[in-house]
Amino acid sequence: MTIGIGLLGLGTVGAGVAAILASPEGRHPLVGHLALRRVAVRDLGRPRPIEIPSELLTTSPEAVIDDPAVEIVVEVMGGLEPARSLILRAIAAGKSVVTANKAVIARYGEEIAAAAAERGVYVLIEAAVGGGIPIIEPLKQSLGGNRIQRVSGIINGTTNYILSRMADEGAAYADVLADAQRLGYAEADPAADVQGGDAADKIAILAGLAYGGPVERSAIATEGIDRLDARDVAYAAQLGFVVKLLAVAERVDSSEVAAPLALDVRVHPTLLPRQHPLAGVHGVNNAILVEGDPVGRVMFYGPGAGAGPTASAVVADILNIAGIRQMGGADAGLDPLLAASSWCRCVLVDGSATHHRNYVRLLTRDEAGVIGKIGTGFGQAGVSIQSIIQFEGQGGGAEIVVITHEVQESRFRAALATIEALAEVDGVAACLRTL
Amino acid sequence: MTIGIGLLGLGTVGAGVAAILASPEGRHPLVGHLALRRVAVRDLGRPRPIEIPSELLTTSPEAVIDDPAVEIVVEVMGGLEPARSLILRAIAAGKSVVTANKAVIARYGEEIAAAAAERGVYVLIEAAVGGGIPIIEPLKQSLGGNRIQRVSGIINGTTNYILSRMADEGAAYADVLADAQRLGYAEADPAADVQGGDAADKIAILAGLAYGGPVERSAIATEGIDRLDARDVAYAAQLGFVVKLLAVAERVDSSEVAAPLALDVRVHPTLLPRQHPLAGVHGVNNAILVEGDPVGRVMFYGPGAGAGPTASAVVADILNIAGIRQMGGADAGLDPLLAASSWCRCVLVDGSATHHRNYVRLLTRDEAGVIGKIGTGFGQAGVSIQSIIQFEGQGGGAEIVVITHEVQESRFRAALATIEALAEVDGVAACLRTL
Repeated sequence: MTIGIGLLGLGTVGAGVAAILASPEGRHPLVGHLALRRVAVRDLGRPRPIEIPSELLTTSPEAVIDDPAVEIVVEVMGGLEPARSLILRAIAAGKSVVTANKAVIARYGEEIAAAAAERGVYVLIEAAVGGGIPIIEPLKQSLGGNRIQRVSGIINGTTNYILSRMADEGAAYADVLADAQRLGYAEADPAADVQGGDAADKIAILAGLAYGGPVERSAIATEGIDRLDARDVAYAAQLGFVVKLLAVAERVDSSEVAAPLALDVRVHPTLLPRQHPLAGVHGVNNAILVEGDPVGRVMFYGPGAGAGPTASAVVADILNIAGIRQMGGADAGLDPLLAASSWCRCVLVDGSATHHRNYVRLLTRDEAGVIGKIGTGFGQAGVSIQSIIQFEGQGGGAEIVVITHEVQESRFRAALATIEALAEVDGVAACLRTL
Repeated sequence: MTIGIGLLGLGTVGAGVAAILASPEGRHPLVGHLALRRVAVRDLGRPRPIEIPSELLTTSPEAVIDDPAVEIVVEVMGGLEPARSLILRAIAAGKSVVTANKAVIARYGEEIAAAAAERGVYVLIEAAVGGGIPIIEPLKQSLGGNRIQRVSGIINGTTNYILSRMADEGAAYADVLADAQRLGYAEADPAADVQGGDAADKIAILAGLAYGGPVERSAIATEGIDRLDARDVAYAAQLGFVVKLLAVAERVDSSEVAAPLALDVRVHPTLLPRQHPLAGVHGVNNAILVEGDPVGRVMFYGPGAGAGPTASAVVADILNIAGIRQMGGADAGLDPLLAASSWCRCVLVDGSATHHRNYVRLLTRDEAGVIGKIGTGFGQAGVSIQSIIQFEGQGGGAEIVVITHEVQESRFRAALATIEALAEVDGVAACLRTL
């Protein structure tokens, strides 16, 4: 049985998908049953990395969706609109959709899932998070017996590339960013990556699957790496830590039957102990750590972006739908694991009530007794400290780095205000989370 | 809809599965549709870590299989027989099977798969390799669009625990083994683990799935860690390597349409460069690296054994079958991805034709010119060398460690025979593969 595929978009990922479909040899034999029927492109005349018969090309995405020979619609155009509307149109036409569009899914996932459930079709999104790393399917299917405690990961390759080079070379953020843009690892407008928005989209998606309910994307506390100082990367290294942009979604409530389920979902630069499994993730690679009961800790690692890896994930989704199609069966409904309908109401907790360890860099006077005053200040405010180290500052002052034990965020912020008010303290130069 | 589960075995893994089924709260809601109907145990009177209503217990595995209320049979007894016969009986009764039994699947996988395909049921084996790590399902479903080049991994926790401690403490193999046995990390009869047989079972299974055809288990070249000398672990560390027991299955033929497909499948202690993704896998953890086109390199990491992780994998398989059952659909066949029928004929190549880098430790006379003679000897035999380092030997002699570049195994062996015949060389003390 041949299954007709329609592509919306023929950029890097789209071309990667077409390349796999065009060379099924040596892959799962089901790939040989997939036939590219129609491809929507913006400009018919543009040269492409892959040869596509010109009669398959059209500038109308609607024509692809409406083509009766197209059974599965693959959306790899990116952007919010018209991508969202086209996905909904494909669903309305009774066609399953495969998309790599994390921005659309993070924002309109609920609307899209409801439409898909109503129409009895799948919307699969393996390529939306972690590039080629199988993470969506394991979360939906392989880890379903677990109570997930925490999902955390390095899920933005651009920032991990920048942070890796800052750590290796002691280079400044702006210099590495400029270089990354020159090399094509960062976009001309890097905001979505460096400000953490892309990672927030992805952790919203992972949290929704891990905990079984949609997460309010706009409520995710998001801090990027764009204000990160090379000094803090260097000091962290001296203290045995690596700085990574971490996206985290964790269960706050320990109750097993919490309704709604309280989650702490956030994105921020984080100091990881050097022996932490995520600390060794270099360059544009991604990794996602899933902690659950009773599995413990499992990690998924690999290339977080790129034509080949992302196309591999898109084709995985196409194969899943094709596999179910091949089963036949009159009046079959949806596989509840693959369809990933939600079963739980999740709410994001107020960040001030959450608990964390912190790294603080203070600019202080270079005189005796300052460390004592800072230590006493934190202690009186009920913040217990793991270490205080003085580094040589610039321009006559000193720099003092404090690493706290775990403390409630609101208490920590109150303590920090007290410390900042000390006559010996000129200011708080940096404040980062620590694992 | 409730789905009846029958358990064959109530040891650590069986009890772990029963514990998940007994507490569905906070897990995927499909877990709540699974009902434990019957459990076969060896001794009805034995105390157990989990309370099971006594009317569910029986000493007859056949009674579990034949019980009409049991729809999915979970085999967690281990051992070759009666496990194999019971799996076949369940298939014959038209029931899908979930098993953690790598020994049975590695040896009788073809027979079992043929019976299951004929009867239209699934035999799922996520728990057979890598404990709680989702690796079987990603190989079958998420990476199907790829041409797999290599699957390599640390898939035996006992040996990795021993090797980690040998590296960390400089301890001797026999001492760490004895300690591991005392702590329960190694069995009283450790042969299957330390001689590599367990890893060979598992790589046979992974290769069969990755390349789409069964692999002759008995033809897998297998070397364990039981003759590994602490000196080599220490020398490797000085040279920037970590010694791991690696299981590897790689495509030898570069042709995409090779029939049969030539594979090199093997298990042996291996020197990994310290920055290699598998080098950081410590203790009883497992990790599997899959390299394919176009995905590149993805890695799956986590606890390779234990009640909780293994039960998580067993329940994943149960859920997959339950999910498909919930779809309904009259006359539905099998999902070809989940059923993982074979599509390719694989043959194992003769090891002498494969190419590897090697680590050799020679016992030599402690006199000038020896390194030169060894270097010349290898060079004349066409083996190019990356490094030769002399270490201080015991009892007046010297120890010379040679690391070769990649060389065909037969050529390397011939060269080594020449070297061993040199008057200055007292013997080959160790010979290990190197990545």
